[in-house]
Amino acid sequence: MSQQQAPTQRTRVIREHERGVYDRETAYKILDEGFICHVGFAQDGQPFVIPTGYGRIGDALYIHGSAASRMLKEVNQGIPVCVTVTLLDGLVLARSIFNHSMNYRSVVILGKAIIVDQPEEKLEALRLLSEHIIPGRWVETRLPNEKELKATTVLRLPIEEFSCKVRQGDAIDDADDMSFPVWAGVLPLPVVPGAPIPDQHLDPKITLPSYVKNYSRTASHPKNVPE
Amino acid sequence: MSQQQAPTQRTRVIREHERGVYDRETAYKILDEGFICHVGFAQDGQPFVIPTGYGRIGDALYIHGSAASRMLKEVNQGIPVCVTVTLLDGLVLARSIFNHSMNYRSVVILGKAIIVDQPEEKLEALRLLSEHIIPGRWVETRLPNEKELKATTVLRLPIEEFSCKVRQGDAIDDADDMSFPVWAGVLPLPVVPGAPIPDQHLDPKITLPSYVKNYSRTASHPKNVPE
Repeated sequence: MSQQQAPTQRTRVIREHERGVYDRETAYKILDEGFICHVGFAQDGQPFVIPTGYGRIGDALYIHGSAASRMLKEVNQGIPVCVTVTLLDGLVLARSIFNHSMNYRSVVILGKAIIVDQPEEKLEALRLLSEHIIPGRWVETRLPNEKELKATTVLRLPIEEFSCKVRQGDAIDDADDMSFPVWAGVLPLPVVPGAPIPDQHLDPKITLPSYVKNYSRTASHPKNVPE
Repeated sequence: MSQQQAPTQRTRVIREHERGVYDRETAYKILDEGFICHVGFAQDGQPFVIPTGYGRIGDALYIHGSAASRMLKEVNQGIPVCVTVTLLDGLVLARSIFNHSMNYRSVVILGKAIIVDQPEEKLEALRLLSEHIIPGRWVETRLPNEKELKATTVLRLPIEEFSCKVRQGDAIDDADDMSFPVWAGVLPLPVVPGAPIPDQHLDPKITLPSYVKNYSRTASHPKNVPE
């Protein structure tokens, strides 16, 4: 199942290299649990980092183009981007301040994103993006018309050159510190959906759909299992 | 209180410009609630985006250098960076798929980060970084020795050129869509601390400290009120 692949010189994890993971299965799991990425691109030597939504199908990442016209103008010309997805799992409290850490899982993808302009692919990409963020929602809504489709931009980035970094588990203290009299452990920081807030103009006869009531990021995304 | 300042050409919010906010008070509130940033830098024209921890004191952002030696090698030479902090508040479900959105608050800071190498400033920066992430922890732990201080890198980035983007509140649907028969509203996605997991070697006589038990990102950081 695990398609381990050699990191390139650009994706090899340098610091804390034992945390580097390079298989698609790990990358896809992280990508499928998250839905906000940070897109990096450079303009006249100045890097910009913009958060935006994304979805995945197979080995393609679809990025929602609401981020910035600044970004889109650039990626349209095929300039290199870096897309990073980070899931924070918790704070790791060690006995020494030096060994404090965080539990997290992150993916860094390098490549060239291109604009999806073929209408059928664009509509399908938007559906996937929507299903990635909140499965079940798309078919219930008023779907996009031609004008709205034109006003939305979607980018496709091939998942080819990538690396993951994963840190999980207990604090790792030096042997000498194990008797230091301070609490040690992990404080999990999960994203837990709060109580849904109905729109102030919502028809009270409309009930809360199960995909909102039971929303979970860790539930499986059946469409997104690795090929 | 609000120190509104004109955005530069590089920080002006282009897309959905009505969401652009440029005052320090808003920026500092976002920076103080978060503690993970995404640092962007370019190397041979290729952008990289790396997540790492940070803290703030006054108009300086202190960035933990555990991110990557790749990054540190570059920023040491004073190359331009972009530091972005994003707080996701919830999913916004509209009647039309086009008007779906997210509630979020983000800050983008452009500038040149430099390595803090003066020992007293470095120790103080590390204390601030620790207090930013988990207030109350620093004084209880085994503090860093000289070797550990040397093995840790801290960067300082002046908060000078920045912009924020904020989206909050209800879905905004077109008038024609208001009667479309689908649930609309906001699904909050707060980060809620889970039950602390004691270290497997923890002395059972050591009780859970209140700063872990009552951990909250939205509690005020008294040290970090804007000057």
